[in-house]
Amino acid sequence: MGGDHSPEEIVKGGVAAARDEGIEVVLVGQEEVVRGELAKQDFADPRIDVANATEVVGMDERPVLAIKEKRDSSIVVGMELLRKGEVAAFVSAGNTGAVMTAACLILGKRKGIHRPALGAVFPFHTGPVLCLDLGANADCKAGWLVQFAHMGSIYMEKVFNIENPRVGLLSSGEEDTKGSQEVQKANKMLRKAKVNFIGNIEGRHIASGIADVIVTDGFTGNVVMKLGEGIGEMLVGSLWKAVTENPNLKTSADLLEPTFRSVIGTLDYRQYGGALLFGVNHSVIVAHGRSDARAIKSAMVAAKRTVALELAEAIKG
Amino acid sequence: MGGDHSPEEIVKGGVAAARDEGIEVVLVGQEEVVRGELAKQDFADPRIDVANATEVVGMDERPVLAIKEKRDSSIVVGMELLRKGEVAAFVSAGNTGAVMTAACLILGKRKGIHRPALGAVFPFHTGPVLCLDLGANADCKAGWLVQFAHMGSIYMEKVFNIENPRVGLLSSGEEDTKGSQEVQKANKMLRKAKVNFIGNIEGRHIASGIADVIVTDGFTGNVVMKLGEGIGEMLVGSLWKAVTENPNLKTSADLLEPTFRSVIGTLDYRQYGGALLFGVNHSVIVAHGRSDARAIKSAMVAAKRTVALELAEAIKG
Repeated sequence: MGGDHSPEEIVKGGVAAARDEGIEVVLVGQEEVVRGELAKQDFADPRIDVANATEVVGMDERPVLAIKEKRDSSIVVGMELLRKGEVAAFVSAGNTGAVMTAACLILGKRKGIHRPALGAVFPFHTGPVLCLDLGANADCKAGWLVQFAHMGSIYMEKVFNIENPRVGLLSSGEEDTKGSQEVQKANKMLRKAKVNFIGNIEGRHIASGIADVIVTDGFTGNVVMKLGEGIGEMLVGSLWKAVTENPNLKTSADLLEPTFRSVIGTLDYRQYGGALLFGVNHSVIVAHGRSDARAIKSAMVAAKRTVALELAEAIKG
Repeated sequence: MGGDHSPEEIVKGGVAAARDEGIEVVLVGQEEVVRGELAKQDFADPRIDVANATEVVGMDERPVLAIKEKRDSSIVVGMELLRKGEVAAFVSAGNTGAVMTAACLILGKRKGIHRPALGAVFPFHTGPVLCLDLGANADCKAGWLVQFAHMGSIYMEKVFNIENPRVGLLSSGEEDTKGSQEVQKANKMLRKAKVNFIGNIEGRHIASGIADVIVTDGFTGNVVMKLGEGIGEMLVGSLWKAVTENPNLKTSADLLEPTFRSVIGTLDYRQYGGALLFGVNHSVIVAHGRSDARAIKSAMVAAKRTVALELAEAIKG
């Protein structure tokens, strides 16, 4: 029931995941509404099931309150199915805070992990880069950042077969002494940690391919990720304006537009599988609130891979 | 003497500022070296003078130590000329930390200002946007952020004649309750402050034109600014890769390249005047370390405007 385009796009995405990828899908939500959407899809399949949840958590609701009070919401019902082992992973385009809170309260954190983190892979032309935290923790202690480095390294090893993934700590300068107090502390701790720490990296290095894992606090990570979204739109807007002012460029622009869009698309993690919640028991994928059917299907494929690789189980504090 | 391309590009930029803009320029540095560069320029002008400074502060030196020990460095000598009123503004492409430290120690902060901030204007296609702090203070107290909002508003009013500039606080969500502890506090304080506060803005809003002034801590600001630099290179790289894989696009790409470069250039503040150090007595402009002659000339033009508008004097705590 979550996300800006639910239930229609969510149901469509689930149907596509079952039809194209053979994934067994349980759609969690108000049963009548969900079945109504399903009926429109012209695709009946035993791989698609519906679990009834009468309540809906709004995008602006306070996470802890919503999870405690709405016990029959799609988030709580879905998370309970996951805890009981009736499903293997949970995908949501709903309220991110509520999904994280429900994951911590219902599934629990992995042993020894201080805080779960949201991480997503950006497929830059230099190779895939995992960034975490993208918004689970606005203020991060140095020790949490070190755990993010460990969790991210495990992910890149398992998913992309990268030996000793290079870990960069996002900071306001390359020198070890640059950055906020906690980042300076984290740098010292990472120098001694059992990860392949390459040192601080700057904003200009994010897409440069010098690190496989980029560690940052959820505040900075969230700003950077959303800047990536906005910058694509901004660049297209500016380019179109420039083109309008020079008619000779029109044909070229039309030819290049699809290429251009696919390039700036690499900045937008929504397009390819959502973010994984690192450090909780079981596999939880947070898709973007604006997800369409394609994004939901990608998120379900990512969820399936996460389960197959036993990623959640591999993470320990 | 500062910056990656000194003294050649700095001297060239100074000469261009004198020749093209009629600015009276004092080049501060090792006199013999500077005069040697000047001789190559084929431009003798009474508007260009040289002040001798025998020492050089390296880009990686510790700011406070460097300023205290190298009293005959170009940064200290230039700042002293400014303090004594022998020049009206100071431009440097050198060690940013050393420039800020020297400004605080030699010029002093404006009365009532807790911390100076580095701010620069980005000429997005939606209009000019001032961002501060871009790196002077990695950890920022809520009260400092509120002062950045005031200083930024004064700037946009004076420089761009914008009445009641719209101030956005960069955060990890639009709701007042989103963000780090200090950002949440700053949001509350800004709701009561005498600025036109539009609330929290997200990364995707930076270039969208909804705010004239964007306030953030120096850590986040620095990461965002440097991401802007890197993203241009990354997008050009990706686009070229895509074009190489499809020869039909080659002609279009060649036609569009200059337009494309100018659009991504808006993300790179180096190209248009450097950053102003807000909140110190007198006008200090920090140009990017990688500045070429054109960037230095722009920074000197920006310095001249700052003096003419009496911006430094307009700022009070």
